[in-house]
Amino acid sequence: MKINGKAYRTIWLNDDGWSVQIIDQTRLPHEFVTETLRSTADAALAIKVMQVRGAPLIGATAAYGVALAMRDDASDEALDKAVAHLAAQRPTAVNLRWALDEMAACLRPLVVADRPAAAYARAARLSDDDVETNRMIGVNALKLIEDIAKAKVRGEPVNILTHCNAGWLACVDWGTATSGIYQAHDAGIKLHVWVDETRPRNQGAALTAYELGAHGVPHSVIVDNAGGHLMQRGKVDICFVGTDRVSANGDVANKIGTYLKALAARDNDVPFYVTLPFSTIDWRLYDGFDIPIEERSGDEVLQMRGRQVQNNGGEGAVTLVHIAAPGSPAANPAFDVTPARLVTGLVTERGICPASAAGLAALYPERVAAE
Amino acid sequence: MKINGKAYRTIWLNDDGWSVQIIDQTRLPHEFVTETLRSTADAALAIKVMQVRGAPLIGATAAYGVALAMRDDASDEALDKAVAHLAAQRPTAVNLRWALDEMAACLRPLVVADRPAAAYARAARLSDDDVETNRMIGVNALKLIEDIAKAKVRGEPVNILTHCNAGWLACVDWGTATSGIYQAHDAGIKLHVWVDETRPRNQGAALTAYELGAHGVPHSVIVDNAGGHLMQRGKVDICFVGTDRVSANGDVANKIGTYLKALAARDNDVPFYVTLPFSTIDWRLYDGFDIPIEERSGDEVLQMRGRQVQNNGGEGAVTLVHIAAPGSPAANPAFDVTPARLVTGLVTERGICPASAAGLAALYPERVAAE
Repeated sequence: MKINGKAYRTIWLNDDGWSVQIIDQTRLPHEFVTETLRSTADAALAIKVMQVRGAPLIGATAAYGVALAMRDDASDEALDKAVAHLAAQRPTAVNLRWALDEMAACLRPLVVADRPAAAYARAARLSDDDVETNRMIGVNALKLIEDIAKAKVRGEPVNILTHCNAGWLACVDWGTATSGIYQAHDAGIKLHVWVDETRPRNQGAALTAYELGAHGVPHSVIVDNAGGHLMQRGKVDICFVGTDRVSANGDVANKIGTYLKALAARDNDVPFYVTLPFSTIDWRLYDGFDIPIEERSGDEVLQMRGRQVQNNGGEGAVTLVHIAAPGSPAANPAFDVTPARLVTGLVTERGICPASAAGLAALYPERVAAE
Repeated sequence: MKINGKAYRTIWLNDDGWSVQIIDQTRLPHEFVTETLRSTADAALAIKVMQVRGAPLIGATAAYGVALAMRDDASDEALDKAVAHLAAQRPTAVNLRWALDEMAACLRPLVVADRPAAAYARAARLSDDDVETNRMIGVNALKLIEDIAKAKVRGEPVNILTHCNAGWLACVDWGTATSGIYQAHDAGIKLHVWVDETRPRNQGAALTAYELGAHGVPHSVIVDNAGGHLMQRGKVDICFVGTDRVSANGDVANKIGTYLKALAARDNDVPFYVTLPFSTIDWRLYDGFDIPIEERSGDEVLQMRGRQVQNNGGEGAVTLVHIAAPGSPAANPAFDVTPARLVTGLVTERGICPASAAGLAALYPERVAAE
């Protein structure tokens, strides 16, 4: 998608043919800065400190992380080490694991000399496939938005609520939850997006609002507390969220707070859709409550980064402030699990299915057969 | 309650016998500053900009605001004007209206010359009554906490979740939601409180954490998104929240996000109690969804105040930062309505009752008869 009129992906190979460029998402929305990854350690750190985040982008970054490892040392040992190191950075995202498995399956049969070039080619294809997958998720979500738009009084926007950033910044391009939104907007459907701030890391206020604004999609930032009230008052037509991992029975692990919005959607008969590529499905996990939930530093809750507001209207410095009572500790579970019963449907690149083992099996019969 | 070992109320008459002192709660938790109210305009502004907040404290401040008006001009016209001006500052809190009605009912029958002294006396009694009312709310809530503690394995704390600040800082003393917590803690019951941050104004992280910390009650700040997850994992035994207005059928208006926690509590069989003094009940309103919901400035969502974190560990300045994407607008509904069906019980100074017209009538037969 575009930033200041220039088309970007979130990750790309530099002209030198080996180093990898990313947008440093910890600096957004206050600063647009790109960073160069020159080693597996760089890629691992970028994943760990969330310079890259979002399940699909984590997968793509890990794939390039393997390619960077192969450039240095393409032995079996180095491959195993790189895969293990990258996998350890974020425990909840299943397509980090998926991308690493894809890379290993591609590279292990090859002789060592062929591995570096093959790794870069596989990582590039993984990125390109992600773009096409997300485009197709949007094609399917667009139908849901079109149906709501048709039932609207002329001039009334379709009101969509989203949580966290499952936008193009979370993927290589398009986004999962936002792909249908961008396609609907581009097709001339009148939209308004309620953007959940998404504490503690504020990916909604910082990233989703940033990318929707850059693309010209009308939106309002709201605190995470507000969505239930808006649904009670009929101000939300549909919810689209992303996910970090879907278990084989259709339970959905996503950014902390997703479960609360799903409860409110159910209580107010608002459709609640989860958007995902096939690589987010964990076919070997039969209960979403077995998904490991990452516990992150309490400082993410207690402190917040922003740009200093100047009384003279000038541009202040980007500053970290402590917002809570001095000395009070914080707990910071990063994800929650929304039970399948609260999910209206899963929107994938192949279509929309119920959040259930049977629903997933109907869309992915070959995967069910393989397990 | 105590701050640095010194007992405070949130509002008190100064030694001069007429000016009123408050704790400026917009400066907490970073700075402890008191402010002097010398006129109705001062009192109205303190309510409007939330130097004082919390339904009971707003009521007490409005009462002193009327007393300050009477000192200048005790005519009927001045009384009406002061009442109307103070009432307009916060539309959702019903005991703002209640306190003003009490003051007017006390003063109007009197001759003008008697009104100033009577106004100060009535405001003082209103404050003292609030302290006793909240103490009794805590006596009743304490029984609920004791019952949970008895069923715990020795050494396991009772885990309580609260939203916003319905603590002593929201009242004259004790608090509503916190009164039972303080009494249980003082009685030696092992507790741990999950403190919802409560975006956008962070009353949980800033005020509830501050006052629990000052009193020595173990607690953890969490983002508003986390409560559902904690309940799913069995980490919350009971919820206590305050309220700004309860309708005659038991619906509860409280800080935005309360409804989401009530939904999660119901979904996980966690008891969800609303604590309130009788003055918070709006006997003339039969449906909570008719309660007007204050829409506040979007800047409260987009900006946040905190103390700058210094790399050298020193104490930085208190600073306002813009946290969202530049140019993105925000919506900011300040309250939501939790339907009575999600409320386990109402804890008042008279006891605990079901959140229903019948439940309230059983505790307050005289009020039902009066309407």
